[in-house]
Amino acid sequence: MSSQYHVAVLGATGAVGQEFLSLFESRDFPVRSLKLLASARSAGTQMRFKGEAVVVEEIKPESFEGIDVAFFSAGASRSKEYAPHALRAGATVIDNSSAFRMDPSVPLVVPEINFDSIGEGQRLIANPNCSAIIMLMGVAPLRKLGKIERVIVSTYQSASGAGASAMRELEEQTKAVLAGKPAEPKVMPHVYAFNLFSHNTAINEYGYNDEEWKVIHESRKILGMPDLRINATCVRVPVLRAHSESITVEFQGPAPTEDEVRRVFLESEGVRLVDDRENNVFPMPLDASGQGDVLVGRIRRDLSHPSAISLFVVGDQLLKGAALNAVQIAEKLMAAGRL
Amino acid sequence: MSSQYHVAVLGATGAVGQEFLSLFESRDFPVRSLKLLASARSAGTQMRFKGEAVVVEEIKPESFEGIDVAFFSAGASRSKEYAPHALRAGATVIDNSSAFRMDPSVPLVVPEINFDSIGEGQRLIANPNCSAIIMLMGVAPLRKLGKIERVIVSTYQSASGAGASAMRELEEQTKAVLAGKPAEPKVMPHVYAFNLFSHNTAINEYGYNDEEWKVIHESRKILGMPDLRINATCVRVPVLRAHSESITVEFQGPAPTEDEVRRVFLESEGVRLVDDRENNVFPMPLDASGQGDVLVGRIRRDLSHPSAISLFVVGDQLLKGAALNAVQIAEKLMAAGRL
Repeated sequence: MSSQYHVAVLGATGAVGQEFLSLFESRDFPVRSLKLLASARSAGTQMRFKGEAVVVEEIKPESFEGIDVAFFSAGASRSKEYAPHALRAGATVIDNSSAFRMDPSVPLVVPEINFDSIGEGQRLIANPNCSAIIMLMGVAPLRKLGKIERVIVSTYQSASGAGASAMRELEEQTKAVLAGKPAEPKVMPHVYAFNLFSHNTAINEYGYNDEEWKVIHESRKILGMPDLRINATCVRVPVLRAHSESITVEFQGPAPTEDEVRRVFLESEGVRLVDDRENNVFPMPLDASGQGDVLVGRIRRDLSHPSAISLFVVGDQLLKGAALNAVQIAEKLMAAGRL
Repeated sequence: MSSQYHVAVLGATGAVGQEFLSLFESRDFPVRSLKLLASARSAGTQMRFKGEAVVVEEIKPESFEGIDVAFFSAGASRSKEYAPHALRAGATVIDNSSAFRMDPSVPLVVPEINFDSIGEGQRLIANPNCSAIIMLMGVAPLRKLGKIERVIVSTYQSASGAGASAMRELEEQTKAVLAGKPAEPKVMPHVYAFNLFSHNTAINEYGYNDEEWKVIHESRKILGMPDLRINATCVRVPVLRAHSESITVEFQGPAPTEDEVRRVFLESEGVRLVDDRENNVFPMPLDASGQGDVLVGRIRRDLSHPSAISLFVVGDQLLKGAALNAVQIAEKLMAAGRL
């Protein structure tokens, strides 16, 4: 294996795609060559990488010849179509879509939690749902303190989760409303300016939307706890790019103390404790935006349950919730000599 | 008792105060005379009521002579100072502050839930915290379906809960941010534009902020369930005037079915069922703003617990969460011939 890699990004022009390029630069990712791929609609777009222009190419079955690692972020149907081509060409594929996440033969990975689930020779790796990743960064470390029996989460999800167009819609619509003009939802199904709404994905027979279903089932797979009880309510709020989550964790046996919980987070990779009661400073989306770490705070005993604690976590949806987690998977594979 | 009343509003120029005047008009509240009261700072302000100008007077101990019913909405310290004067003058006082809410001798009332807690001759009545009222409109009716053991709530609270100045700050700050200018928090402790933060009230030794503590303790008092287990997380979101709440209710014994829950809400006063899974239409702050009813939806079994259901409620913080609830208390006292 080379120590410099031929890298491809599929979905390069999207909100997550752009973060890949920034991360390759800021983390000094060992890029030998960079191929940016997108649908015909976006092909020809010029993007900048390390001061040079890179022209986005139209994705084709043969696009992956000579590629070592491909980051996919162009939706589930594109992933299903092109992952087989990339794998056949010998690339390792880290897929940010939902296409393969629940496939039992595909590891679903948050590197701090279950990097070891990537078996020898596995070259298709799924990057989890953003809300699941951010929640788990606050939940997984708590397993050191006891057996987790149940997780109850309500999310406060930002526009970035629906892509760059949703972020623009939130800004443009808010401008219009502040100017006394009507709000016109185009990307989102409801008015987004100064409003919030239940996550706009299909509702299943149990009354759960697709985002909630992902949080429940992907989290179980990542934690390796197929029976973990999870209650999820996913809501979009008029915030631009970081997701917040109000979480209660019930343990078997007595709840850990606040100090034990704080100590675990202080010792955990990828999280930063923001828990200043005196000054009322806790995790906020603005502080998490652009940060790789997930912010964790509001740590307290749940007074309504003998064995539970509550906390509030906030993470950048585009970074740890998407591009950064994928890049970290690749970096860890490299460090292990597996890429 | 007259069928037309001499009415006073203390805190008339505030966000809640202004709603009182609108409600008196829209509900044809039997106002014989209207006295608007405020601190010296706001005295002299002209407000309009039924097409006529009413000048706001400075509050004084003798302001309540001849008043039948006084609505207080000027903060706890003003209520503590002036309620005794108003009561001595013979007025019934409906107090929107936290001053007397937890006083065992003062009824804390949501008319649909515990109007009967107002004892004969009681003339000081406390109006509950907005988040508690809105939550209880979604929780109290469920008592018909079984014994409630535990409530877990995460709130999405609007700017109006911090008054008219916070609403202006959210708008002005958002304008600034959209124009590329810095956000300058003045009323709120944190940037509010496109951000959210833990409720900005003091944190107690258990790690709960004052708003959460009110939700827990006021709800127990209103429901007459002093041992009810409640987990509350209160968060401010960049929404202008309605509060949303993600709620899970655990029952003793089996959980009611979704249909049973829906039926209870269809038959309940003051709530409106908004629960359209097919079209993904559920309660939203924009739809609740200006509405007297609390919107209830996202009704589903909590798959993480054998006896729990989850739901999402949204109510106008200035109306059912404040002024409307107070006016409804007065109306019900009138209808009962007790005012």
